[in-house]
Amino acid sequence: MKLYETLAEDIAQSIRTGVMKLGDKLPSVRETSISRSVSPSTVFEAYYLLEARGLIRAKERSGYYVIAGAKKLPPEPERVSNPASSSTEVDVSRLVFDILEASKMRDVAPFGSAFPSPLLFPFDKLASSMNASMRVMDPWSTVDDLTPGSIHLRRQIALRYLVSGMHVHTDDIIITSGALDALNLCLLAVTRPGDAVIIESPSFYGALQALERLGLRAIEVPTHPREGVDLNALANAIEQHQPKACWLMTNFQNPLGSQMSDEKKRALVELITRYELPLIEDDVYAELYFGERRPLPAKAFDSKGLVMHCSSFSKSLAPGFRVGWAMPGRFTSAVARHKLTTTLSASVPAQEALADYLAKGQFDRHLRQLRHVLSVQQSAVIEAIARYFPAETKATRPGGGYFSWVELPAHVDALEVHRRALSLGISVAPGPMFSAQRHFKNCLRINYGHRFDARMDAALQTLGKLVISLM
Amino acid sequence: MKLYETLAEDIAQSIRTGVMKLGDKLPSVRETSISRSVSPSTVFEAYYLLEARGLIRAKERSGYYVIAGAKKLPPEPERVSNPASSSTEVDVSRLVFDILEASKMRDVAPFGSAFPSPLLFPFDKLASSMNASMRVMDPWSTVDDLTPGSIHLRRQIALRYLVSGMHVHTDDIIITSGALDALNLCLLAVTRPGDAVIIESPSFYGALQALERLGLRAIEVPTHPREGVDLNALANAIEQHQPKACWLMTNFQNPLGSQMSDEKKRALVELITRYELPLIEDDVYAELYFGERRPLPAKAFDSKGLVMHCSSFSKSLAPGFRVGWAMPGRFTSAVARHKLTTTLSASVPAQEALADYLAKGQFDRHLRQLRHVLSVQQSAVIEAIARYFPAETKATRPGGGYFSWVELPAHVDALEVHRRALSLGISVAPGPMFSAQRHFKNCLRINYGHRFDARMDAALQTLGKLVISLM
Repeated sequence: MKLYETLAEDIAQSIRTGVMKLGDKLPSVRETSISRSVSPSTVFEAYYLLEARGLIRAKERSGYYVIAGAKKLPPEPERVSNPASSSTEVDVSRLVFDILEASKMRDVAPFGSAFPSPLLFPFDKLASSMNASMRVMDPWSTVDDLTPGSIHLRRQIALRYLVSGMHVHTDDIIITSGALDALNLCLLAVTRPGDAVIIESPSFYGALQALERLGLRAIEVPTHPREGVDLNALANAIEQHQPKACWLMTNFQNPLGSQMSDEKKRALVELITRYELPLIEDDVYAELYFGERRPLPAKAFDSKGLVMHCSSFSKSLAPGFRVGWAMPGRFTSAVARHKLTTTLSASVPAQEALADYLAKGQFDRHLRQLRHVLSVQQSAVIEAIARYFPAETKATRPGGGYFSWVELPAHVDALEVHRRALSLGISVAPGPMFSAQRHFKNCLRINYGHRFDARMDAALQTLGKLVISLM
Repeated sequence: MKLYETLAEDIAQSIRTGVMKLGDKLPSVRETSISRSVSPSTVFEAYYLLEARGLIRAKERSGYYVIAGAKKLPPEPERVSNPASSSTEVDVSRLVFDILEASKMRDVAPFGSAFPSPLLFPFDKLASSMNASMRVMDPWSTVDDLTPGSIHLRRQIALRYLVSGMHVHTDDIIITSGALDALNLCLLAVTRPGDAVIIESPSFYGALQALERLGLRAIEVPTHPREGVDLNALANAIEQHQPKACWLMTNFQNPLGSQMSDEKKRALVELITRYELPLIEDDVYAELYFGERRPLPAKAFDSKGLVMHCSSFSKSLAPGFRVGWAMPGRFTSAVARHKLTTTLSASVPAQEALADYLAKGQFDRHLRQLRHVLSVQQSAVIEAIARYFPAETKATRPGGGYFSWVELPAHVDALEVHRRALSLGISVAPGPMFSAQRHFKNCLRINYGHRFDARMDAALQTLGKLVISLM
């Protein structure tokens, strides 16, 4: 985070919390430059950013004034989703691909992107670790470190769980080519074509695509935008459909940002244990928490080996390395065998580089910085939505990750928003991407993982106007 | 290759070609040291190696004598395989895994290994390329270089095909996580559970495992140990079973080492084109040819986009990097989409490192060396089989790759050989691993991709005794 951004965030915080009030005059650029010991140009840039974010405005020959009041944020959506209780054949892949491909251009404002800004990751340090580990790499590791994967890396991963109080053995871990690979292999290990699988509503489109590819049927279960899947509805769905697996995100769910409490996670594990139902847990965003500590995964409450926990370094440290892992409990050997017959193993140099980086103890410092940036950007984006979008708009404020789920007024067609926004150089992820039943027609997933600047602010203003025009 | 190994190979070559004859006395260590300008200890080591390989013997106080005659090699198998013409549900995975896992110990003589020695690859140079490419890596490449993959690498791959006279466009290439991934994605793109797929007999067990995982039926087609699949039988099988794909290796087939002539490849492509049948071509060993030039793939004769050509760097340059590619013709977009929903992309740093290495023009020099070593080791292993195995034994002498297919006397049980050999610290790959019908009960695949020394010679001697004891 640059100096002027830190300064702007401090001032925004004062406005948000009411320390500075609507109509207050800001100290002059010179005064702030002195009081903060920064250059006048830094102050100018900070004020410019705050102006772009609609928090202050310059009056000619007079100075800057606060024009936004404390906490003018849109309400969070509160309604639990209401999918049809039948199981559905999945056929979303074409829609998802068309949207993802259309959104790929570099010059588009990336609110529809699945990734945070790659500029947030420590590539220099990763390059050093790659270099260090390649120099000492034992050629035999290219044969010996195939699945389950590098013992150095598995040890580092196990250590991180230990810090959260989870006792994980290196033998419990299988290194995969990213979390998506882990999730797919877990699904493959416990299902056969035609089986039913429980997912959230809305759910990560990668889960929908996996179900589609494997010829599985989706059972979408009502999900609360803050608290996650509805356990009663889940129990009913299990009774009704005899699913072979459940695929959920317990922390900072994509696309909602919902998070289950520890109690709820415990109850979830008790429920699936009662039915001997494997739970595939996608936990890729857990390290991106804004609170005090890493939220526990459902895996922490699993004593029967039914939770197939999956995560990766792609969202937290090393996008593009394609290194993730699975802890599939009692299904570990089945998952390892599927890994061996599909891609054999994750890339060995990438595994060793990450092991080196983690062993040097640099990860936590990087994560602290990353979390701070994401949390600041969340505020900025949601404030902009409050400014520019119709008053009926709702937006989740997740406790981590980089997605907010935005509910537009009831009759606004998110697919139409997506199409028109794209022609204006703005990408969004429309709700129907996240449902086998193509629900959430008036919803958008908004990515706040990219640097918020005047251009991004202007893009949200454009998007707001577009939404209003479609009402 | 070390100096003494080169010297030993020169002398072995003289013996093999009859320049030195049975009973001839070798020049003394001192004479050879002078005539070859090498140290006496190098000559000693060379003579020791030739002795270990059974080509010469020391007589006390007299010197070394040739004890082997010219070309005492086992005959090559000639019989085309004769699988049942029905289609078969595949259930070999457990057998294959049990054998592979049992053979994994580092201290075993690795004749059963699927890999050549990792010491044959230029890890130092790859490390330099990794370092160079990581230092200049654009962070955005971790988002932009997902499937179809790094444009730098695809360009380098396209250039190599151009040298063989094949016009390949970068858009025709999808980078995958190794060839196994490419093959699996191609199979996924053209089949549905229950479909029939044509394979060779014997065939690569990875193909069998893929069929098993996807619920496909195998049609094993008669295959000649030198010339590859029987085209008449293939045409009959297509008529009889209406398969959805054909999965073949046209060059240095695993496990036979067979190679189709260019004419045969052309006829093969004509045949599958007549039936609009996709051909999945596994061409991972093509660069390991011992002849004048890289043999063409079937893809070179494909004008209709029906050949789904797959290859990788794992056998030729960078094992463990997990970087391969597919050129799936008319199925390119389907394969790319399956890649995106399974593992998203190959590891980006590994792709960029390989692109850097290839751009520096180092690959061909490395390959020349690698081919020479493999061809020398093939001679050494097959000569040892001639020395130690029963006279009825046959062994293929492929024009490339690192596998020989060994036919033991009819009633010797290869699975029993595998079990007993393993308890003696020797791995082999028994024939039934390579057939859905569990044929080839008296065959072994022997890997000659590891350094041949006195220990390996002794292991083959032990193996020969074991086979004789089981007759």
